[in-house]
Amino acid sequence: MNAPPHPLLAGITGAAGPVQRRAIAKAITLLESTRADHRAQGDALLTALLPHTGKAFRLGLSGVPGVGKSTFIEALGLHLIAQGHRVAVLTIDPSSSVSGGSILGDKTRMERLSVHEQAYIRPSPSSGTLGGVAEKTREAMLVCEAAGYDIVIVETVGVGQSETAVAGMTDMFVLMQLPNAGDDLQAIKKGVMEIADLVAINKADIDAHAATRAEAQITSSLRLFGQHGHPGHARHDTALWHPRVLQISALQGRGVDAFWAAVEDYRRVQSANGHLAARRRQQAQAWMWERIDAGLKQAFRMQPQVQAMLPGLREDVLAGRIAASTAARSLLQAGGFAPP
Amino acid sequence: MNAPPHPLLAGITGAAGPVQRRAIAKAITLLESTRADHRAQGDALLTALLPHTGKAFRLGLSGVPGVGKSTFIEALGLHLIAQGHRVAVLTIDPSSSVSGGSILGDKTRMERLSVHEQAYIRPSPSSGTLGGVAEKTREAMLVCEAAGYDIVIVETVGVGQSETAVAGMTDMFVLMQLPNAGDDLQAIKKGVMEIADLVAINKADIDAHAATRAEAQITSSLRLFGQHGHPGHARHDTALWHPRVLQISALQGRGVDAFWAAVEDYRRVQSANGHLAARRRQQAQAWMWERIDAGLKQAFRMQPQVQAMLPGLREDVLAGRIAASTAARSLLQAGGFAPP
Repeated sequence: MNAPPHPLLAGITGAAGPVQRRAIAKAITLLESTRADHRAQGDALLTALLPHTGKAFRLGLSGVPGVGKSTFIEALGLHLIAQGHRVAVLTIDPSSSVSGGSILGDKTRMERLSVHEQAYIRPSPSSGTLGGVAEKTREAMLVCEAAGYDIVIVETVGVGQSETAVAGMTDMFVLMQLPNAGDDLQAIKKGVMEIADLVAINKADIDAHAATRAEAQITSSLRLFGQHGHPGHARHDTALWHPRVLQISALQGRGVDAFWAAVEDYRRVQSANGHLAARRRQQAQAWMWERIDAGLKQAFRMQPQVQAMLPGLREDVLAGRIAASTAARSLLQAGGFAPP
Repeated sequence: MNAPPHPLLAGITGAAGPVQRRAIAKAITLLESTRADHRAQGDALLTALLPHTGKAFRLGLSGVPGVGKSTFIEALGLHLIAQGHRVAVLTIDPSSSVSGGSILGDKTRMERLSVHEQAYIRPSPSSGTLGGVAEKTREAMLVCEAAGYDIVIVETVGVGQSETAVAGMTDMFVLMQLPNAGDDLQAIKKGVMEIADLVAINKADIDAHAATRAEAQITSSLRLFGQHGHPGHARHDTALWHPRVLQISALQGRGVDAFWAAVEDYRRVQSANGHLAARRRQQAQAWMWERIDAGLKQAFRMQPQVQAMLPGLREDVLAGRIAASTAARSLLQAGGFAPP
């Protein structure tokens, strides 16, 4: 109850500067560790940091490789810093654990932003599953918020379910698109467009006609598919915010103002109607259950009886020799997770 | 190993007629029971039935109330029976456990089909969660297949995640729409359009212009949003089937032929390229893990320490006093699901 404050707490919540930077980096490294004693220390630190968090705006950003995310984030970040903000950029790249080094983590991508003292850029954690990577990023976000970064950008590339993970930890989810919507080059995964609160068509300078056509197409499709908000919300709940589509040119710095004005609009509307607070509560709750689910599944997979029986039953299910529900019940009973 | 065959096995796999009907009904009732001894009997029966299953085509169908699902299923069912098929119609209505009686289970909806001896219509199970309802329906589907019904239609109304559940247990998922696409009347939930293999615009007779406009809009949006198939599939995998959009008039019986021709086309293409078999294997696997997850969560929630701590920690998470990941770890440890 009256444990001494964690030694990193003062550094993180203290004045901006090299000391704070080092404290942030150490804290994130601690939180990324899988050692049990580090985990316990990390949890204590998180709990101590929590009262200092929650004041930042959390912006999620996704788009295929080549869409220009880095260029845009650099332009946006410098724009925000010029307005007096402090900007943290975090990344979720589930492929980084496979490739060894994250393509998104390459700091040289944002040369000017990364050396700015009002910016903090952290590459993707490179450990394990998307769930694990997302958890580390959520925790890193809290550290940055406690350190006074008031804009946190979480970016991801369209790999697996990473967009859903990013949308599930941010206040607003932005999808970046190329002007050639509808072409084969443009890999929009099913469902990703529909969770976007804003779609930004980048490289509008290259082909103005294509960009305008894409804007019209996407706007009409968003109206058709997305009119009823997230499942479980009644129609009138979301009537105040309809996803918008904007054209930008990150390379020329065009549209960054309009983009940020739209973000501020969204923030104002969704704060006033209570959606922002509700979204965060819902995210916290979902995060807890997601981690519980992951922990339960891990406990299940580590159980010796389950380990012995799972491969055979899995084969039986795939070959149609046993119903999946029967296999599930057998495994749960054998593992001691259900009454016999 | 050499247990006697379940007494219902012979009745279900025997000749069509009143005896088979009674055996099917008894089997489904047994599978819907939550009593542990019934559950064990049900599992034994399922395992015995399994070699007789899998030969039917499984068609999922969803659409808002009023779109005309019953009228269409009756028209389609009678059309198929006239071609020599036997048709089973199952329903997933997660709201039925709340309302007591399922609106979809009203047999008088399909008067002519329900009395036909080559048709078997079963209302939604009315127990508990969507996961539970979906599991019962999956098992009922296996019983019907073992009884020789070669077309199984699983219908649902757009409540919660029921469309995803239906798409997750069928070979093809069809969404029925009204001609007024884009209007407020038309509740398309996010993500539902994108899992459709075919969209049928019903009541095309009422307003031909609106129906044609809706067909064009939906076609273009499907092309824009759905071009890359299900997540995790590479582009070329799904190149052979692009979701189609058709106009029908169930009331006038128009378009039923064309609808079924499109279904047969889908079946032929997806069988030839191996997608149908792959989809079923993936579904069986997902079903197993879904039931394991549900069982683990139930075991977790029943654990006394978890029951004691969960409400308080949940409040702490919602109030921002503790990080969701920290709360999850505390609960897992207290419940004995993780090393301390």
